[in-house]
Amino acid sequence: MNKHIEALTQQVYKLASDMYAYGIREVVISPGSRSTPLAIAFAAHPEIKVWVHPDERSAAFFALGLMKGSERPVGILCTSGTAAANYTPAIAEAHISRLPLVVLTSDRPHELRGIGAPQAINQGRMFDNYTQYQFDFPVADGNDSQAMVKTINFQLQKASQHLYGPHRGPIHFNLPFREPLTPNLELRTQLQTEDYTIPHYQKSASIEPIESILNKPKALIVVGDMQHQEVDQILKYSTIHDVPILADPLSQLRQSQHPNIVTTYDLLFRANLTAEPDYIIRVGKPVVSKATNKWLGETTAYQILVQNNDQPDSYPIAPDISYEMSANDFFRQINERRKGQRTDWLKKWRLLEERARVEVEDYKRRAVDESGYVAHLLDKLNSDEALFISNSMPIRDVDNLAINCEAKLFANRGANGIDGVVSTALGMAVHQKTTLLIGDLAFYHDMNGLLMSKLYDINLNIVLLNNDGGGIFSYLPQKEAASNYFEELFGTPTGLNFEHAASLYHFTYHRYERLEPFKQLQLSHVGSHIYEIITQREDNLTQHQILYKKMSDIANVKF
Amino acid sequence: MNKHIEALTQQVYKLASDMYAYGIREVVISPGSRSTPLAIAFAAHPEIKVWVHPDERSAAFFALGLMKGSERPVGILCTSGTAAANYTPAIAEAHISRLPLVVLTSDRPHELRGIGAPQAINQGRMFDNYTQYQFDFPVADGNDSQAMVKTINFQLQKASQHLYGPHRGPIHFNLPFREPLTPNLELRTQLQTEDYTIPHYQKSASIEPIESILNKPKALIVVGDMQHQEVDQILKYSTIHDVPILADPLSQLRQSQHPNIVTTYDLLFRANLTAEPDYIIRVGKPVVSKATNKWLGETTAYQILVQNNDQPDSYPIAPDISYEMSANDFFRQINERRKGQRTDWLKKWRLLEERARVEVEDYKRRAVDESGYVAHLLDKLNSDEALFISNSMPIRDVDNLAINCEAKLFANRGANGIDGVVSTALGMAVHQKTTLLIGDLAFYHDMNGLLMSKLYDINLNIVLLNNDGGGIFSYLPQKEAASNYFEELFGTPTGLNFEHAASLYHFTYHRYERLEPFKQLQLSHVGSHIYEIITQREDNLTQHQILYKKMSDIANVKF
Repeated sequence: MNKHIEALTQQVYKLASDMYAYGIREVVISPGSRSTPLAIAFAAHPEIKVWVHPDERSAAFFALGLMKGSERPVGILCTSGTAAANYTPAIAEAHISRLPLVVLTSDRPHELRGIGAPQAINQGRMFDNYTQYQFDFPVADGNDSQAMVKTINFQLQKASQHLYGPHRGPIHFNLPFREPLTPNLELRTQLQTEDYTIPHYQKSASIEPIESILNKPKALIVVGDMQHQEVDQILKYSTIHDVPILADPLSQLRQSQHPNIVTTYDLLFRANLTAEPDYIIRVGKPVVSKATNKWLGETTAYQILVQNNDQPDSYPIAPDISYEMSANDFFRQINERRKGQRTDWLKKWRLLEERARVEVEDYKRRAVDESGYVAHLLDKLNSDEALFISNSMPIRDVDNLAINCEAKLFANRGANGIDGVVSTALGMAVHQKTTLLIGDLAFYHDMNGLLMSKLYDINLNIVLLNNDGGGIFSYLPQKEAASNYFEELFGTPTGLNFEHAASLYHFTYHRYERLEPFKQLQLSHVGSHIYEIITQREDNLTQHQILYKKMSDIANVKF
Repeated sequence: MNKHIEALTQQVYKLASDMYAYGIREVVISPGSRSTPLAIAFAAHPEIKVWVHPDERSAAFFALGLMKGSERPVGILCTSGTAAANYTPAIAEAHISRLPLVVLTSDRPHELRGIGAPQAINQGRMFDNYTQYQFDFPVADGNDSQAMVKTINFQLQKASQHLYGPHRGPIHFNLPFREPLTPNLELRTQLQTEDYTIPHYQKSASIEPIESILNKPKALIVVGDMQHQEVDQILKYSTIHDVPILADPLSQLRQSQHPNIVTTYDLLFRANLTAEPDYIIRVGKPVVSKATNKWLGETTAYQILVQNNDQPDSYPIAPDISYEMSANDFFRQINERRKGQRTDWLKKWRLLEERARVEVEDYKRRAVDESGYVAHLLDKLNSDEALFISNSMPIRDVDNLAINCEAKLFANRGANGIDGVVSTALGMAVHQKTTLLIGDLAFYHDMNGLLMSKLYDINLNIVLLNNDGGGIFSYLPQKEAASNYFEELFGTPTGLNFEHAASLYHFTYHRYERLEPFKQLQLSHVGSHIYEIITQREDNLTQHQILYKKMSDIANVKF
């Protein structure tokens, strides 16, 4: 065996083995020549599942879904050139969502960079804006067989701090390979399945600075996307100390049916609710509700931020104090500190929630527009199912209407893009029974993502809200001001008949133009199905405005 | 009118006017809220054509096509967040192809960056690896109305050096906008249509260092993609001094039918032709032919590189001397310097070309595989038509078979990606009668790009070579070495029936499984048509190998 192949083989088998050791069980590969050595190493590894996806943009979002579904880091691998650039949107999303995406771009060897060689773009630090860590590997030249082993040891250990815990987020390894590109397959027994013990994040911080604050009577907990963190201590604190919890759909707390959970706060704040708590504990990512974030930015209450990572999202306003620790650790520590001061603060919030729910229930019963379908979809889902929600209108509808939905709710709320949504949902569907709720523009944007369902028989239900264009733009002030240009620049009606997309990717296709037949629909998790719902943007706007109006009366209370 | 709207209005109307002044006539906009102010300014500008494309990835490639078709800089505009990240692949391609893409990303105002606000990713310097220039604009706050005017003057003047001439390439303006986002439409008469005079690139360099070289008898000119540069002085030099020209398909020189043009050099070098010129003048981008580049990297001939930009592509080997000037300027200067030394050097090359053409013609007549279709397609095209060629197999087939094709030939040969090909061809089709030749994987990758044809009635013929997967990988050495993993990792058969894609985007659809009916096909440039050709990867490989073998006899000559 020649020296080059020996070195290449050792390099890629060790890389694959060490990635397994650090917890990677799945790799999404987009075909190409330059990535051959590592692609073969992953394919030959007995315990690593390889997914092949020809579109790198969708492939990377598919990996986000795999992570959301499996709670593990996932690798993506592609060839050199613009292929790698297609990863950028999903990496930007993973960065803000703190998802440990392991980005593996193969590259031409260093001597072919910057001189106009084919398929050679500048890949060094190409994702720097969005990665926690990056390293440009040397070529395995075989001159010092221990040098590459040491380099992989160093780099994977350094990178592994970003796979779990407070520093987690995407990392990028750029891997130049020189031809010939095939590792020695006879040596594939070198591929290891040893699993290292990953040290889990533990941190405590002093509660002293907030001790007097915690004893004030009017406390409020606001919980955003918890990204698989445990939450039982939040509920315990709420129960013992009578603290209402504003629970974002992605907090997974609404499903707890805990009596202190408030779900209608977006509608209430939109109707100018004037609550004045003494302090607010913000947990997890910022909430979806724009009105709530606006209120948080204006209230004079003392704000405590609790996020289990080292770069917490302080939006919408810098908190008075920030704890970088897990929610359970934080609440366990403060639970004993607060002295009971029962007031009617909680009672008032419960009453508000109760009244608002009556209106929402009433609205849900009567709505025949888009939100009517969303309401009925939410009612169909059980606690063992996941609903993946597209950004733009769907996530806002769900925020308002999911007052007693049992399903787990997921979305890409890092950068809130409408790109890659289909792929993320399909990745998630590998690990959980999943239904995707999506509008027509987001669906169009990632139609290529549907391929994975066909290639790998991944079951997915897609509820596709088609109002032929960008529905959310109807809610923007620029609609009135620039009506001449609105339909061209924002309406973006594509006029596509998505039944053809269903045929292309082997989804069954069902169209609904009235709510009644949709009510009868029973979702199955066998096979792949598109349920397209034809709605009108204008209807949708009118219906929402009626609900907003009713909330004004309820929100008009004194605390 | 409030101060903010006044400032915003002034800013975007001036930006749109100045971009017009510097030569921008088309802008591709992807819908979004944050980009509203500038989107409206472009839409309201009387002389700027606005294209709306909902998928940013395809939109940016569409702009590359507009530039290739119109020879002008083109703008792209999108909203904040991952939307912008979708531009990355096309910017990487534009960077290497030196196309003056003006990337306009709207952003949230500075105070919302880095804190977890929605749709706010780090957009500062986000395309730094691939842009010639970037600037992060201040928000128009209206405190000093002249400050923004001055900033736009400074920045557009600085950036304009990258729109034309030796420093050309993509530039990036990041534009934060604060709400409200609608400019005052009553003031749209402020939009200017004045056209500045762009100083054109002129440079001369001393010919002295190569004067003695130029007098040596055996000269060879190798011409790659000329990107719209004039070439008449190259032909004149060749005629006067008996110099053969190896003309890449993208050089647009093959159509000249000049007797000194060599088109079969890829096949000859692949068959180990051992030519030993005294000097080689390389003009334009590196040629497509891998075998030729290998030979250029090994020959001892003196090499002169002529490229009209400031970062010439020295691949495949650093030249002995490099001239950063236009081809016509260079050849005009050297034309008078060379002293006539007629030898049989040119005659030998002509004989080689003649013999090789006989084989290629014979092969074209008999081939019934993929290349048979490509050969017949080339024969159908006239001199007023453009053929846009996908990377991977199509460009290689065309390189070998386009020995007397009349059409102009185009491809994305910057980074040679298979992404964005459909969109680039459609952009090109806006300005020229275009046929696209593409394989099934590249077609799948950018199917979303087809939407523009439906929305804007852009006529395009697509000849889709479907061998159900990555045909080029059959030619790679790793096919044999890793046969167990080949089909999964490289074959990538998607099994898609593209007739559904045709229906989705309103293309007519025609399938060919035999060559005979395809021979009868007459291409029209009215309407949009997909001609899908079903071929077998294995057939294709076998046929090519027969041709390669025949070339060995011809190439075995002494110079």
